[in-house]
Amino acid sequence: MTAEQIKMIVIAAQAAATSSFFQVYSIIGVEDKKKRAKLAELTGNQSHVEHCGHFFVFCADLYRHLLAGEMEGTDVGAALEETEKFMVGLIDTTLAAQNAVLAAESMGLGICYIGGIRNNLPEVCELLKIPDRVLPLFGLAVGYPDQEPGQKPRLPFEHIYHTDEYEQDKNKLKKQLEAYNQSITEYYEERTGGARTERWTEQIAGKIVRSRRQYIRQFLLAKRFLLK
Amino acid sequence: MTAEQIKMIVIAAQAAATSSFFQVYSIIGVEDKKKRAKLAELTGNQSHVEHCGHFFVFCADLYRHLLAGEMEGTDVGAALEETEKFMVGLIDTTLAAQNAVLAAESMGLGICYIGGIRNNLPEVCELLKIPDRVLPLFGLAVGYPDQEPGQKPRLPFEHIYHTDEYEQDKNKLKKQLEAYNQSITEYYEERTGGARTERWTEQIAGKIVRSRRQYIRQFLLAKRFLLK
Repeated sequence: MTAEQIKMIVIAAQAAATSSFFQVYSIIGVEDKKKRAKLAELTGNQSHVEHCGHFFVFCADLYRHLLAGEMEGTDVGAALEETEKFMVGLIDTTLAAQNAVLAAESMGLGICYIGGIRNNLPEVCELLKIPDRVLPLFGLAVGYPDQEPGQKPRLPFEHIYHTDEYEQDKNKLKKQLEAYNQSITEYYEERTGGARTERWTEQIAGKIVRSRRQYIRQFLLAKRFLLK
Repeated sequence: MTAEQIKMIVIAAQAAATSSFFQVYSIIGVEDKKKRAKLAELTGNQSHVEHCGHFFVFCADLYRHLLAGEMEGTDVGAALEETEKFMVGLIDTTLAAQNAVLAAESMGLGICYIGGIRNNLPEVCELLKIPDRVLPLFGLAVGYPDQEPGQKPRLPFEHIYHTDEYEQDKNKLKKQLEAYNQSITEYYEERTGGARTERWTEQIAGKIVRSRRQYIRQFLLAKRFLLK
């Protein structure tokens, strides 16, 4: 990947909508080989983090707003600690990231989001010298794909999309999930020659019941997020 | 806007990446005129909420995972209350939304995100019959634009994008913000014939210092988010 491609991807990211014009994100491109190897390890031994064409780390960033406050003689520190500001940070950063993804894909590149960056945020922040009020949310591995994995079937349109009010009929919702289970079982059977046959609800219940990244709550407070 | 366009936009939203295949979102399309009028009021008297071609409400949704657990005989309720799961909900929903936006724009439609949906979440949830573990994050007004507003200049590329580590030099960061202030002042001057001349840091410090939506923290806890 070229420096021009990287710049175009970042500029596309910045073109996304931003809450109240706050622009609550920064993007770190990791080129250093040792840092890439370390990040691959920290994200759960994902070798593509080390070997992909380019690796971005998308961070919710309220630090520049602290600086803006300093420049204007306004102490904004306490206001940045509100739950609403944390939410704005997550939303702004993710809007920018998905714009980056579609820009990359439009260039024939492939992408993989790396949520594993949240496995070990203290070490990630140390490695990339990330200050308080800046929170790495996910990585993004980008490069020319060497496979065409196809799209996994998504939940039925009728299950995701509601008109005028949220569907309240539990049995109807469960029937939609059962129909989806069938299409997921077929998808796995076909892809693995019958080796995998699990249902979506089976896979998801088994995964989501596990406590994950429980340290994050304390970590966020220490980084001056979510204090109020 | 046609039903087919709406369906294509939602299917494009669903094509976005999703953390661990969890698909943590639902989308409510609001067609009922009274509900639209009420939502316009609740979001701070934004008449486009009432009068746009179509109005979507994007919700982080962990309710279906509770149902998936019920179907599999697994009590996942407590696990859904973790901070990490809340973050996944915000990220998944926002990835889907930005895909929806780019799909809509590719059809010649224009969009406006409506963060004002968070002004009054209890009433929004009542109006749209939204259960616990489902959180409206933002609205999205979509329709054929009757103006071409142009793009507001974004923060300088060098300020947003860091290589290998976060820029630690405060003075350098502040100089970048000063340069940006200049371009924002020029942008406003030109657009308003000199009526507005404010700096970005001035605008942002003045806005972000205000406490916003302080009720949200308690509301989230009541909706079974962020309890751990």
